[in-house]
This record gives sequence, C-alpha cells and structure tokens, in this order.
Amino acid sequence: MAASQSVLDPLAIGIDIGGTGTKFGIVDHVGNVLFSGDMSTKKNPQVEAFIDNLYTNVKVLIDKAGGIGRIKGIGVGAPNGNFYTGTVEYAPNLPWKGVIPLAKMIEDKFKLRVTLTNDANAAAEGEMIYGAAQGMKDFIMITLGTGVGSGIVANGKLIYGHDGFAGELGHTIVLPDGRLHAGTGKKGSLESYASATGVRLTTLEMLKNTTTPSSLRKVPPDQIDSKKVSEAAIAGDELAKEVYTFTGRILGIALANAVMFSSPEAIILFGGLTKAGELILKPTRENMEANLIQIFQNKVKILVSHLKESDAAILGASALAWETA
Amino acid sequence: MAASQSVLDPLAIGIDIGGTGTKFGIVDHVGNVLFSGDMSTKKNPQVEAFIDNLYTNVKVLIDKAGGIGRIKGIGVGAPNGNFYTGTVEYAPNLPWKGVIPLAKMIEDKFKLRVTLTNDANAAAEGEMIYGAAQGMKDFIMITLGTGVGSGIVANGKLIYGHDGFAGELGHTIVLPDGRLHAGTGKKGSLESYASATGVRLTTLEMLKNTTTPSSLRKVPPDQIDSKKVSEAAIAGDELAKEVYTFTGRILGIALANAVMFSSPEAIILFGGLTKAGELILKPTRENMEANLIQIFQNKVKILVSHLKESDAAILGASALAWETA
Repeated sequence: MAASQSVLDPLAIGIDIGGTGTKFGIVDHVGNVLFSGDMSTKKNPQVEAFIDNLYTNVKVLIDKAGGIGRIKGIGVGAPNGNFYTGTVEYAPNLPWKGVIPLAKMIEDKFKLRVTLTNDANAAAEGEMIYGAAQGMKDFIMITLGTGVGSGIVANGKLIYGHDGFAGELGHTIVLPDGRLHAGTGKKGSLESYASATGVRLTTLEMLKNTTTPSSLRKVPPDQIDSKKVSEAAIAGDELAKEVYTFTGRILGIALANAVMFSSPEAIILFGGLTKAGELILKPTRENMEANLIQIFQNKVKILVSHLKESDAAILGASALAWETA
Repeated sequence: MAASQSVLDPLAIGIDIGGTGTKFGIVDHVGNVLFSGDMSTKKNPQVEAFIDNLYTNVKVLIDKAGGIGRIKGIGVGAPNGNFYTGTVEYAPNLPWKGVIPLAKMIEDKFKLRVTLTNDANAAAEGEMIYGAAQGMKDFIMITLGTGVGSGIVANGKLIYGHDGFAGELGHTIVLPDGRLHAGTGKKGSLESYASATGVRLTTLEMLKNTTTPSSLRKVPPDQIDSKKVSEAAIAGDELAKEVYTFTGRILGIALANAVMFSSPEAIILFGGLTKAGELILKPTRENMEANLIQIFQNKVKILVSHLKESDAAILGASALAWETA
C-alpha cells in the first residue's frame, strides 16, 4: 500500500489518556499523524471538565482536517480501560475514581463512535495496523515503561478475555516470593523487575550488595533512574550491564512462558527499557530460548517497535477506530 | 437441546491416540458415546499398519452405527498433534518417529474429513461442546495426568498460535531453577510438580527431607505413585496432605499467571490429580487468588470436568469433527 492520502480518505482520531497528560491526534489509514496535540489530565480532577477541554482541543484539529465528516471514529487508550464496557475502572493513576463511562461520555460529546481499551492493547492494535505486526495473526506486544503492559493477539484478534481485562503479563509471577510490588502488594511479578522502577530497584540492590565498580556509585540513590542506568550500561559500566543481564533473564523467562501459552509469530517490545538495545535484548533472547521446550525454539522473533515514540500512543489508540469500523 | 437422538442425526468419530493405547468411538451431537473400542498403539511400530488396524476396528463400529453415510467426520487427539498441518511431530511417546502426516493418512483410508490436534486441545473442545464449558467463549482446560496439558479458548476459539503448538502451560516455568524435568531438560516447569510424576517426586523428597509421620514410609520408594499418595491424603495422612498443599501452591501460581494472560471465565481441570478433591483444589484456589491482582480476584471459577473419564478422550476428539464441520 502506498503512503498516499486522497483528500476523500477517512481519518481516525486517536486519544491516549495517561495519568499526567493526554495526547491526541488525527491519523490517516497508513499511520501518518496529520495533526496532534496534548493537554493535562491531572489538572482536570472532574472528568466532565476533562471531556469539555478535550473536545475544545480536538475540535480545532478536526476543523483543520476538513471537518467531522471525514472522521471515521475515535479510539481511546486509557489505563484500566475496558473494551467491552467502554469504562475506565479504578485506575490508580487517573484523577477520576471508581468506574467512569468514558467511551459513552466522549461519544455523547463528539457524536462519533468511540472504542476504548487499555494502553497496551491499543499499542498492539497500532503495531497490527501500522507497525511491525502488519499481517501477523498471532503476536504479543509488551510495553516496557514505568510499568509493564501487554496486548495479546491470537487468531487475528486481541484477547480481551471474559471481562475485558486480559493481557496483564506485567503482573504474572516470574519469581515466586520475589521482590514486592508496591502498587499491587504481590511478590515477584514481571513488572517488579522489567520496568523502569524495577531497573532502578535492581540497580540500588546491586550497588548495595556487590562491590562491582560503577560510575553510578557517585550518583545519590534517589537520583538513580532507568535512564541513567541505561546510559551507564551503554557507556560500558559493568554494574549497569549486569542490571540489564539480570533484567533480561527475568524478561526472558516471562517471554518463554508467554510463547508456550499462545505461540506467537513475534513478540514486539516497546518503551524505555528497549533503549539499552542488545544489552537487554541479548540476555532476554537467550533466556527465552533456554526456557522454551524444543518445538518452540528458534522460531519466535523478538522485535523492537519501530513506531516513533512520540506518535505511538496516538497511533495505537487511532488503530482501534479502524479495527471496529 | 434435548438429549434425544434421531436416527438421521449425523454422528462423529473420535480417536484418541496415546503412547500405549488408542481409544475410538462414535458419538452423537449431545455427547453420547454410542459405540467404542480400543487397540494397542505400541504394538504397531509401523504407522501404515496402525492405520490399517485402526480402520478394521473402527469400520465395525461404523457399520453398527448405520454406515459411513451417517458420519460427519473424524476428530483425532494425539500427542504433539498439529491442528494446522494435521501432522504429529516428534512425539516422544509414540512409536513413529519424525513428522507423520496422520490426518491425511486417516483421511485417505476412511474417505472422511479428519481434524487433528493434541490431546489437551481436544479435551478443551470436548468441554466446550459437551461439558462444563458449554456456552463459554473464554476458558482454559488443564489436564493433570502423567503430564500436564492445556487447551486455551479465547474469543470462542482454541488458540493454536502461529505454528499450531500453542497451549503448553505444562511447560511454563513456575519456579526458575526448580526441579529438573527429565523429559525436557528444563527446570521448574508446572509439569515437573503438578503431574502424577511430580506428585511422586514431591512425596519422595518430603519423605527424605522431613520427619513428618506417614503411612507412606512403609511403602518401598519405587512403589510410591500419585494414586497411593492421593489415597493416603484422603485417609488423613499428614505428609500426603502436605504434598497436595505444595502441589496446589505451584498450580495456583500457574493458574494466576494464566488468568492474568487471557482472563478466562473458568479453568476446567481434568485428570488423576483432581481425585484428591479439595485437598488439592483448596490450596490451588487460595494460591491462585493470592497471586492475582485485584481486578481478577474472586471471579474465575475453578471447575472439575464432569465428563466420564473413560469417555472424555473420545468425546474430546469427536468434538473436533463438529467444530470444523
């Protein structure tokens, strides 16, 4: 398909709601973000005011794009977003508490069809429509950011499960009785290790429990974050490299388990942790293969998303609008 | 649907191929096994001879059932059976080595449409068509026998994955660096604990490493099997009960991980280990719930299959014939 754009082609709106900010954009069929913007989420403690402000902001872009007649629909990615009910339920990072009928509220305001899911499922849709998973019927998307999210596609469809909440690979237990996850109270989950927070904690533990020389020993503990660890590792710091080797080991086990569950063609990784490149990908790949039984070995691709990070959230959300159109 | 059977209703053939024996039967739409039989698998080192003998045996039943015109198709469950290709690939317990085009061979011989998958996927189809999963679109079937098999249904369809081999929950790693699985060479898999073999090994370890009094201390180690442990546990033996508490802990973690992956309505258990009843189900349920994040808690049913054990394999295989008809 050529990346051309007729003036008559329909467009989709993608809205990615995060705890701090909300990004939105108007996207064509091949994944060009034609117009985009952002606004604060947390400065809108009332969801009604948030919707009003969102409409005001997005309406400007709709007019630029040629008016509402060109818009096929709206896709929304939001934490704890439920595809079946269109609600956001008990999202710890959002200012609105309880169960919020967000899809219906946006639909009523915009008079456009709205499809909502969580951010990782939206990311998986984005990869399937515009990204590395084009043409794939079975793949797993894993977002390695502040937390770990996932979207699982099997038989060409996202798995939402019985209740709309499927795909929480980040909370699966990799090391029983392992590290406590402050947010969930569970021990040894993938997210407690293979997230920005996890990398920070692993680094602090290694600085404390080993004598490995490290440039990070000069950094005050409260200023150590995954970005600094990643930069140190890329610069050759031994301890920082060990942090990624360990993180890759945990991630590799989790990926092996995911592969033996749904046997995907590829696993697509996205997010901050992938910036360490082969430093994390190599141990991840090796530990995944080492834990796979023979019939699964050497056939699952681990790919890093090539969508522009600034566009990915909008693209993922907008993909929902095409999928359900 | 009434459990009645008109003489004109179509019928399905179910064939379950195991390492030792093969069971076959003719089944109606509501799960009555009208005619059935069995034969040796391992006495047929040549697959061609196996197919010839199978045909001879099954043909007798077909004639009893009113002739080939009444048969809609054949479903086959076999270890390492691949749904997409109809082949059995490198099955360690079958006498035929390499890749065997079993579906095609049976199709050519019987002149009937043949659908093949592994035994656990067939069991899941059986539960969906005739058993505890009727009407469910999202559930997981787990067979706890000599090994641990699984079949995962999402969006109303079995997940076969990219290569046809999805659903190997038994080989997922629950305790990294845990018990060595002699068959796969991997450490800490679900199957190395939550199978008949696993229960035997856990019992031997506990007899050796604890001083808990037990009636099993009088049994020679090479005669300890999961049946004896189950009987001892039911009779109140402390050590045997601890074996199931431990096994349930491992199984509970694995089920929690499966739930957070595909969010099923129910998990259906089948096989020898379920004979211990609440002795294994209670710790399994408790450990599953304890490892689930809040949004998944208290909503997934753990059910024990109510299909007759002697019929279940044939029913599961026969279900494939309806599914693809």
